[in-house]
Amino acid sequence: MKIVIVGGVAGGASAAARARRLDESAEIVLIERGSDPSFANCGMPYYIGGEIAERGKLLVTPIARLEARYRLDVRARSQVERIDRAAKRVTVRNLVSGELYEETYNKLILSPGAAPFRPPIPGADLPGIYTLRNLDDADRLLEATLNSRQAVILGGGFIGIELAENLVQRGLNVTLVERNGQILPPWDAEMIVPLQSLLKERGVDVRLGESAAAFQQTTGQLQVTLTSGTLIPADFVVLAVGVRPDNSLAVAAGLAVGERGGIQVDATMRTSDPDIYAVGDAIETVDAITGQPTQIPLAGPANRQGRIAADHIFGRSATYRGTQGSAIVGLFGKSAAMTGLSEKACLRLQRPHEKVYLHAGHHAGYYPGAEQLSLKLLFNPQEGTILGAQAVGGAGVDKRIDVIATAMQGGLTVFDLEEAELCYAPQFGSAKDPVNMAGFIAGGVVRGDHPLRHSDDLLTGRLGDVTLIDVRTPAEYAQGAIPGAINLEIDQLRQRLAEIPSGKPVVAYCQVGFRGYLATRILLQAGFDAANLSGGYTTYSRRVAAGSS
Amino acid sequence: MKIVIVGGVAGGASAAARARRLDESAEIVLIERGSDPSFANCGMPYYIGGEIAERGKLLVTPIARLEARYRLDVRARSQVERIDRAAKRVTVRNLVSGELYEETYNKLILSPGAAPFRPPIPGADLPGIYTLRNLDDADRLLEATLNSRQAVILGGGFIGIELAENLVQRGLNVTLVERNGQILPPWDAEMIVPLQSLLKERGVDVRLGESAAAFQQTTGQLQVTLTSGTLIPADFVVLAVGVRPDNSLAVAAGLAVGERGGIQVDATMRTSDPDIYAVGDAIETVDAITGQPTQIPLAGPANRQGRIAADHIFGRSATYRGTQGSAIVGLFGKSAAMTGLSEKACLRLQRPHEKVYLHAGHHAGYYPGAEQLSLKLLFNPQEGTILGAQAVGGAGVDKRIDVIATAMQGGLTVFDLEEAELCYAPQFGSAKDPVNMAGFIAGGVVRGDHPLRHSDDLLTGRLGDVTLIDVRTPAEYAQGAIPGAINLEIDQLRQRLAEIPSGKPVVAYCQVGFRGYLATRILLQAGFDAANLSGGYTTYSRRVAAGSS
Repeated sequence: MKIVIVGGVAGGASAAARARRLDESAEIVLIERGSDPSFANCGMPYYIGGEIAERGKLLVTPIARLEARYRLDVRARSQVERIDRAAKRVTVRNLVSGELYEETYNKLILSPGAAPFRPPIPGADLPGIYTLRNLDDADRLLEATLNSRQAVILGGGFIGIELAENLVQRGLNVTLVERNGQILPPWDAEMIVPLQSLLKERGVDVRLGESAAAFQQTTGQLQVTLTSGTLIPADFVVLAVGVRPDNSLAVAAGLAVGERGGIQVDATMRTSDPDIYAVGDAIETVDAITGQPTQIPLAGPANRQGRIAADHIFGRSATYRGTQGSAIVGLFGKSAAMTGLSEKACLRLQRPHEKVYLHAGHHAGYYPGAEQLSLKLLFNPQEGTILGAQAVGGAGVDKRIDVIATAMQGGLTVFDLEEAELCYAPQFGSAKDPVNMAGFIAGGVVRGDHPLRHSDDLLTGRLGDVTLIDVRTPAEYAQGAIPGAINLEIDQLRQRLAEIPSGKPVVAYCQVGFRGYLATRILLQAGFDAANLSGGYTTYSRRVAAGSS
Repeated sequence: MKIVIVGGVAGGASAAARARRLDESAEIVLIERGSDPSFANCGMPYYIGGEIAERGKLLVTPIARLEARYRLDVRARSQVERIDRAAKRVTVRNLVSGELYEETYNKLILSPGAAPFRPPIPGADLPGIYTLRNLDDADRLLEATLNSRQAVILGGGFIGIELAENLVQRGLNVTLVERNGQILPPWDAEMIVPLQSLLKERGVDVRLGESAAAFQQTTGQLQVTLTSGTLIPADFVVLAVGVRPDNSLAVAAGLAVGERGGIQVDATMRTSDPDIYAVGDAIETVDAITGQPTQIPLAGPANRQGRIAADHIFGRSATYRGTQGSAIVGLFGKSAAMTGLSEKACLRLQRPHEKVYLHAGHHAGYYPGAEQLSLKLLFNPQEGTILGAQAVGGAGVDKRIDVIATAMQGGLTVFDLEEAELCYAPQFGSAKDPVNMAGFIAGGVVRGDHPLRHSDDLLTGRLGDVTLIDVRTPAEYAQGAIPGAINLEIDQLRQRLAEIPSGKPVVAYCQVGFRGYLATRILLQAGFDAANLSGGYTTYSRRVAAGSS
């Protein structure tokens, strides 16, 4: 068996290592365009920022070890230029010598990755305009960073905001330009408001709803013209506006690709040619929730896909279950994580869904150091099936999304989240963990005990004419309240029901949603048409900030 | 509807609040022996240690709020002395005035908790010998701590080791006496070796396999005589040798109790009397994994049980799924967590099981600050069903056990753990998370690709005559190796196969198990009867330490 693998990193290197473990006698050729077939691309922003001080740390498995330990035939700085499917042969160019040669295969695994998109903007090819894909790019960006004072980052996705953090750590003035009305477009807008605020607090000039119209070279500097006409000077610019599957080789070979360019594969990672597999950021995969085709460039899935391709080559029955979209991004010690569908994805896909918000400490409030964690859970309002979740905050964000991701993998419902038995000691969680609380709230909605209303519907007027009751203390109310709300503190509510106008629906709210829920239960039983504003004033404020930002 | 609840804290207070949310008109009487029906008992050790500086923080919901917000009729410092089931009436004693009175009920909820066990040791009632159950106890212990230099803690369970940490934080000399050969008996011995070492590093005199034989009062001090005859002076002693269900009221009323004294309930928390429910540490519940009766005093389950009892009283169909035993304990910034069955529980229950160990960073190794996390996974060797997991280390221990606990709740297998899609960025995890790695290793065992051997079998001689091959580098080997092992570094193994004696089974090992796995794959394909030592030299060393401690 001779396996040729095109491209290393997560998908290709995993496939190579797995293939070797399965078969000592196989010939395994790993062809990599760059200098290192196995490097930690997710670490590059932190190398640029200095958090990862040694470049060598990014080399996950050096070539010498790939050769000695896995007996791989590694061809670095080499590029496959053509696939001859009929002859089962690839044409390889040695990028150092320029030499061209051919290599036959029994099975071919494509792991070419995805390339940063270079938008067709005048001047986008000027010197000082960078993208970040491999270690050579990272070296260039690091050098630019160390010699600059002012940077412009185009794109507020994962790489854009990680770079923003790291350039700030290096002392640069950073402008972050994002064409959408929010950073981190996979998340719902109101959920990442705290990270947007944090960027601004740390001095990043965040420009939402804008993009670059042109780049110009001025004396010793670049100048970025935004679509609004604003001019921003920059010592260098980073383009981080997304990636595109690197499908040129596959397309030229006539392999099937999807609408958005991803190489199409079956659950065993096989392309339309049964002797060619494809894995990683270059492929079109299946959304584990919707079953629809999708393209999700993430390291974890790429690793598993590489493993599955090797398994299938050696006659094993492994299949890929699809990508759930579990992701996390850190920013100055805070983080945002998500799994499954966002609300906007549910809307786009017209999936029946309801949402709940909660804001809780990441561990018991009585133990010092609890950090606020905001959680949004999306679920089917009839059956309680979990559709997705997002969290933002400090510590413990990753844990809650990982737990919910696992619950989704197991087909659990919001009722099961109520009963999830998580570890509890006051430093680590709460006896009623935020995951349980999300289950309680969502379960109450599905059961009909807990009618909810949402801030976005309130702000757009879709709620119609309602009486808003702020059940917080007068002191909290005085700090800021929803316009038009009357203040009836929860602990006096039963005595003051007569103050509530009759004949109109009532929406109660508090700071985070819990007292609003208690108020709703009291009001419903007193005969009011009552509901709770999910996530309370906290979600309301973020929704306002998201809308106005 | 009139509901009388006996005992507050997690179970009783949750039941009361839930009952109120479900029914505004119900009369709800909460009778509590102590001064506070809703306090954070899990926080008491940290109040004694000063980490929680204000006593008020431990009062989760003060009585005034229970009354105003939930309209509860709270009777603190009151004790139910008798239940008259025929008349549906309890006799209450006001512990302040001594007055006795009767209270009728439609439904009675018992939440009496569990009492610290006072072993029948001569002198166990001397002044200066404390237990820790409620805030009054915590106040007494805090006072003793502030006025003492030397303390003896009997019992190395949750409370014992949390107290040991907190007394050390207050500058005391602490002796911890545990009758078993390990601290934290629910865990398997080799898994908590790092915490035992940590206690010793922090100056705690840990005495395993010993217990107290007698206490004596000497001039101004106590003296503890251990079973070994050793005498230990102490300014005070804490008895933390476990708890017993506080079942006296239930037993006197003729309610059914289990073998170990827990009040028996059905899945709706109803006792043998359909108008009496019981929740929390006093009950016998069902082990969610085995379906067997068990007693697991934990706050999370108590909360859920209280909620379910209230639900059932109001005609709802909620049922308790049993207790999984998810638990965590912190110690000087490290922690140990577990869920489901331990290996010793599997052995006791004669459940077919296999185990795997792994030692990995809690996040990507290339990002600074990764802390070692050791994980043990127990599973059915035929189907791959997950039976339990234990972890020990620094950051991220809670997350991995919570994820596996959720996977178990969803009925997932070790193959599903391979495919778990967890959030990954280098600060938070690894593209192949330790949870995935545990799945890979266990999956490889179930599939037959990855024969394992274990250190305990090696140490007891059950492995018979094997060739041990240490595949680490000569430098690692020189630091310490398993007696009799020959050193054949993994990267040279293929070239040096001839050095391995033929005709004997071969067991390969490395530092944590991964290189041992690669070696096993090479050896198997070269025709050897080969297996990998799970968890490598790290697990071996801990097993040795556990055995000899």
